[in-house]
Amino acid sequence: MIEVHDLVQAAARDAARWDRDGLPDEMIKLAGRNGLLGADRPASFGGAELDARELGRLAATLGHACTSLRSLVTVHGMVAAAVDRWGTAAQRELWLPRLTSGEVIAALAATEAGAGTELSAVAMAFEPVGADFLVSGTKLWVTFGQRADIYLVLGRAPGGLCAALVDRDRPGVGVEPAESGLGLRGARLATVRFDRVRIPANQLIAPPGFGLSHVIGTALDHGRYTVAWGGVGLARACLGDAAAHAATRVQGGAALAEHQLIRATLGRCWADVEGAQALCERAADARIAGSPEALIATIAAKYAAAGVAASVSERAVQILGAAGCAPDSRIGRFYRDAKVMQIIEGAQEVAEVTMGEHVMRGARS
Amino acid sequence: MIEVHDLVQAAARDAARWDRDGLPDEMIKLAGRNGLLGADRPASFGGAELDARELGRLAATLGHACTSLRSLVTVHGMVAAAVDRWGTAAQRELWLPRLTSGEVIAALAATEAGAGTELSAVAMAFEPVGADFLVSGTKLWVTFGQRADIYLVLGRAPGGLCAALVDRDRPGVGVEPAESGLGLRGARLATVRFDRVRIPANQLIAPPGFGLSHVIGTALDHGRYTVAWGGVGLARACLGDAAAHAATRVQGGAALAEHQLIRATLGRCWADVEGAQALCERAADARIAGSPEALIATIAAKYAAAGVAASVSERAVQILGAAGCAPDSRIGRFYRDAKVMQIIEGAQEVAEVTMGEHVMRGARS
Amino acid sequence: MIEVHDLVQAAARDAARWDRDGLPDEMIKLAGRNGLLGADRPASFGGAELDARELGRLAATLGHACTSLRSLVTVHGMVAAAVDRWGTAAQRELWLPRLTSGEVIAALAATEAGAGTELSAVAMAFEPVGADFLVSGTKLWVTFGQRADIYLVLGRAPGGLCAALVDRDRPGVGVEPAESGLGLRGARLATVRFDRVRIPANQLIAPPGFGLSHVIGTALDHGRYTVAWGGVGLARACLGDAAAHAATRVQGGAALAEHQLIRATLGRCWADVEGAQALCERAADARIAGSPEALIATIAAKYAAAGVAASVSERAVQILGAAGCAPDSRIGRFYRDAKVMQIIEGAQEVAEVTMGEHVMRGARS
Amino acid sequence: MIEVHDLVQAAARDAARWDRDGLPDEMIKLAGRNGLLGADRPASFGGAELDARELGRLAATLGHACTSLRSLVTVHGMVAAAVDRWGTAAQRELWLPRLTSGEVIAALAATEAGAGTELSAVAMAFEPVGADFLVSGTKLWVTFGQRADIYLVLGRAPGGLCAALVDRDRPGVGVEPAESGLGLRGARLATVRFDRVRIPANQLIAPPGFGLSHVIGTALDHGRYTVAWGGVGLARACLGDAAAHAATRVQGGAALAEHQLIRATLGRCWADVEGAQALCERAADARIAGSPEALIATIAAKYAAAGVAASVSERAVQILGAAGCAPDSRIGRFYRDAKVMQIIEGAQEVAEVTMGEHVMRGARS
Repeated sequence: MIEVHDLVQAAARDAARWDRDGLPDEMIKLAGRNGLLGADRPASFGGAELDARELGRLAATLGHACTSLRSLVTVHGMVAAAVDRWGTAAQRELWLPRLTSGEVIAALAATEAGAGTELSAVAMAFEPVGADFLVSGTKLWVTFGQRADIYLVLGRAPGGLCAALVDRDRPGVGVEPAESGLGLRGARLATVRFDRVRIPANQLIAPPGFGLSHVIGTALDHGRYTVAWGGVGLARACLGDAAAHAATRVQGGAALAEHQLIRATLGRCWADVEGAQALCERAADARIAGSPEALIATIAAKYAAAGVAASVSERAVQILGAAGCAPDSRIGRFYRDAKVMQIIEGAQEVAEVTMGEHVMRGARS
Repeated sequence: MIEVHDLVQAAARDAARWDRDGLPDEMIKLAGRNGLLGADRPASFGGAELDARELGRLAATLGHACTSLRSLVTVHGMVAAAVDRWGTAAQRELWLPRLTSGEVIAALAATEAGAGTELSAVAMAFEPVGADFLVSGTKLWVTFGQRADIYLVLGRAPGGLCAALVDRDRPGVGVEPAESGLGLRGARLATVRFDRVRIPANQLIAPPGFGLSHVIGTALDHGRYTVAWGGVGLARACLGDAAAHAATRVQGGAALAEHQLIRATLGRCWADVEGAQALCERAADARIAGSPEALIATIAAKYAAAGVAASVSERAVQILGAAGCAPDSRIGRFYRDAKVMQIIEGAQEVAEVTMGEHVMRGARS
Repeated sequence: MIEVHDLVQAAARDAARWDRDGLPDEMIKLAGRNGLLGADRPASFGGAELDARELGRLAATLGHACTSLRSLVTVHGMVAAAVDRWGTAAQRELWLPRLTSGEVIAALAATEAGAGTELSAVAMAFEPVGADFLVSGTKLWVTFGQRADIYLVLGRAPGGLCAALVDRDRPGVGVEPAESGLGLRGARLATVRFDRVRIPANQLIAPPGFGLSHVIGTALDHGRYTVAWGGVGLARACLGDAAAHAATRVQGGAALAEHQLIRATLGRCWADVEGAQALCERAADARIAGSPEALIATIAAKYAAAGVAASVSERAVQILGAAGCAPDSRIGRFYRDAKVMQIIEGAQEVAEVTMGEHVMRGARS
Repeated sequence: MIEVHDLVQAAARDAARWDRDGLPDEMIKLAGRNGLLGADRPASFGGAELDARELGRLAATLGHACTSLRSLVTVHGMVAAAVDRWGTAAQRELWLPRLTSGEVIAALAATEAGAGTELSAVAMAFEPVGADFLVSGTKLWVTFGQRADIYLVLGRAPGGLCAALVDRDRPGVGVEPAESGLGLRGARLATVRFDRVRIPANQLIAPPGFGLSHVIGTALDHGRYTVAWGGVGLARACLGDAAAHAATRVQGGAALAEHQLIRATLGRCWADVEGAQALCERAADARIAGSPEALIATIAAKYAAAGVAASVSERAVQILGAAGCAPDSRIGRFYRDAKVMQIIEGAQEVAEVTMGEHVMRGARS
């Protein structure tokens, strides 16, 4: 049911162009047609019912090809997961089939100028007006925000933080392309402004008070999981390119691969990638088992994988040398992408502190 | 059949003393009685038939308690594995029951002054005299060499490198205690001199030419595997002690655990330990499956685990401060032990180059 | 005589634009007018006679503002240094005044597709034709190659490797803009093709056989020196921006700077920058003293500074978070620039091996 | 006036023994006779008036030979510096000549079970009784505490924290040897118990309230300075031994030094040692100039040097392999010593936070 071959081939050909101009609409459509969007949702809602391991492998395959393409699957899947987990039966029936088919493209609108790592500080207002809400505020770094049809928006209502789906075509929604100076350049980032946008209360997912802890929480956990696997795919692509370069590039009369320093570097990178993947597999196991450890296992997997994506892409640039800095070099692109992966869905520092709390809970119990 | 509780308790009480004076004979006997020696050998030979995962967990449990105790199980298991895999039916029937019962304690005598990382450079001579061999040379850093009853010795015969069991009580064997300035101090290291020691040819395990590539190769692979798991156990012990110290030690009016820098350090260490254990689990899977990848997976696991043992014990000393330098501190002991784990059964640098070759084989195929 | 204020101010305003569109011609002219080009050349040739320390400080000031601007001074200064050191009196009188005034902009054309780290492998041919040479080949990654009036070209003549100045306006010179996918984007990189370009023999700097070891060798040493100081400036700018961000950005009710993990990170970065600068100062001392250690001291300074530029810019992106990824962020730009600094004028790996040889020479003597 | 040759030679011969049994009394006497104790004190008090650079070089020379010997000079110099800076004329005249001659050996008694990094938490009581004080409490990790004749003790009086010289032979002083499980084993560490030890008020150095911020503060700054230089000496010794080993040890048919991975490691270590020394030189400059930056420059130097001592000794053990673990190996000894250097006179983490505060002060001003 899931068909990735065409997209991976297209990425091999065009990912450098996508990095400059954005992932084209036809590719987004193709992703929908080929079952990549919300692929882990139930078959009854049009999903492919991938389990966590299959979803991870999909993210790794896409991450190996193009981070922006993988990000589409990540962010869309985050919204679908949140709606599936916390939406009412009516909401799930309304939205999920349209999300899994790609008829509706979804994006997450959480980050603000004053609320990045600390999402509880969002200023976005949900003002109740009768049975409706007026939504006002500005969201930054909305992945695929340029293209999305609906936004899962985090804001604050009188009853607490809440999350709601806001259609892009409602009056008051303004979308402005945002460029990245580092990675995810093909992910059609946007700044999205909401100026007293009126939405019916039934677009709230879960009641006020549950918006961050439950709805966005589910989305972020889901996002971390596919980012982690995507990072493993990215790192493996870098390792592969570095090895291929080392096999053919001659220096001092011998292929780079014969230089002990390069060979040892490749070995170290390989061990690191294997380690990150092993943590991703553990997170998959925990998710499939419904274990309470799934959340922290996913944080560890994302932490390790983002770190490895950064370090292996860095080593790969170094092995490729100038070739890694060429504008079409996917290694250079991955190097920029990897930096962003250390920030999104929870910066590395936040992960360290969270994991430290986990250790201390264990130490005290 | 396997009973570790008593030994773990004894280690909790006495490991600091063992570190000074050596693991006592009665503990070695207890290890034999409790089924820890050659525990992965077949039941028909008195083993507990542990599979790779169970053996790994045993090594982790022992490594958590005392590296020298774990080393006994490692080195004894290395010899048993080599005999089981490459010995004749007669050799297996003769030796394995005595090894699994602990009636005979075995050690590996491979390293020489001129042959450490590069074992193919051993100078030890096996001189054929009729149906016998005269064995001459000096072996260094023989773990439990002070106590062993037989040595699996690597040397060179006219037909190539060979490995043979040499009984300690044969004329010409001289054992001299060797001390370590860093770790494994309780492992009763010895320098063992062989001066024209006469052994019958039937003590050769596998024919000449197979001694390193097959016999000692099997032993080293087995050793790396239990060292890896032992390293995970060691690191987890350090993390636990660091967390316990951080929970109670107050600085600047708050428990160390409340200091963000300490908390993040604990989190990072935890992720590292989890990653190393995940690679150990993968190696276990590959070994159980009889996969051709088992060898390289074990190298990766040992590489990662030895690195994590070193880095986590280092961080733990730093968190404990002076308490980590106290003579009875198991953290300080583990810190010294961990350094040695980065050297034995293949130094980290050798592992990097070997893994790099593995990457290049993949890149070229 | 040297006036950097205007350029630094312009960079503060426009460096992000330069990064997209290239350093504008008027800025290059201003650099010439303000005495920045060949500023360490003798006054008799129009230079400002900066000593090594003053030149280093200039490079740090420019590196703090904009890597591409600093690169102009670096690459131009490399050519001027090589001409001054190895040129004949006539060559020096002809070229140096035009270089120091900026009337002629110079670039170094050394790297080829098959010769990056290993410049002795250049394929570029110098074919003698009477008193002239026909120069043929393609040079990559020529910094300011789009704008340069002359190129110091490395090639091979019958008599050995040689270096010559080749005017851009000679028939057969083709210049093609080259983009970077990572750093130095404002440095107007070019691919320069030479198709049987005829030059008189008196444009050779030093005789054949001395082209790499002496002429380009001098240029590279000079380049490494200003890259090193530029890296210190870059790292200090990143540290400053990170501290400014940490002072104002509030998270969890406290400025980032109050978070111990962030504060410790800033401290570690500061120590690293101080260390790199201290090595730059030592290199300055060695250069001023004409010490034979100047070469290796400069390699160490460049190695340390490029490493610190990479690590501090990486930490700064992490502290700034999304703000560091914004297209106008100078931190994101510096992060891309720093990666390139670990490659040009000798990759970090080459520096390590070279320094290792230096250690071994000392050990054997 | 200063004569180190004999001591350095003795250390080359006996440091391994000192590490087991403690630095012998005759060496301590020799250090006094040869002018090493309080060598930076004024000539009028018997010192050699070394300036900061000369003192640093002395510490590096000793640190290159034996950490415990260098520690004697460090700790004795700390007390002498504190007395010289904060003592009354009478105190200086009384104590300094006896300290510089080595007639009286001094130690610092500051750390307690509940006060390590955070010395302001000391529980030691100074109870006023008429013109005297009764001193009660237990001090840990007193370097050369087994041998010292007087202790500079930190405690709390009604008027605030205070520091006083307490003679060892007063009733109530109990000295108990303390062993280290890691480094500084030759430094004759002691636990010193003070049980209502009566001292006259004129043994207080500076009035109550100034004991930590001024008296012990001066001592710690002085200590950090010589520890820093000692660390450079230690690291240089490790690098030298590693290079010597690499020059002769053959592996795979080539000297280790010919292995690119080893060579690059030596290069990296060399750059690190140079960087640390450069920071020590900067600290020397700042101290000689009486700069207000001297304190933070010394912290940076100690932070860098302790880190480099740890990393270079770690690399050296790895290069020496088993030889580095031998009981007489000075590399193994240095490896243990280096760990302690990352803890004493301010742990690395404390230095990071303190330097971060320095950065933030700069950012805000």
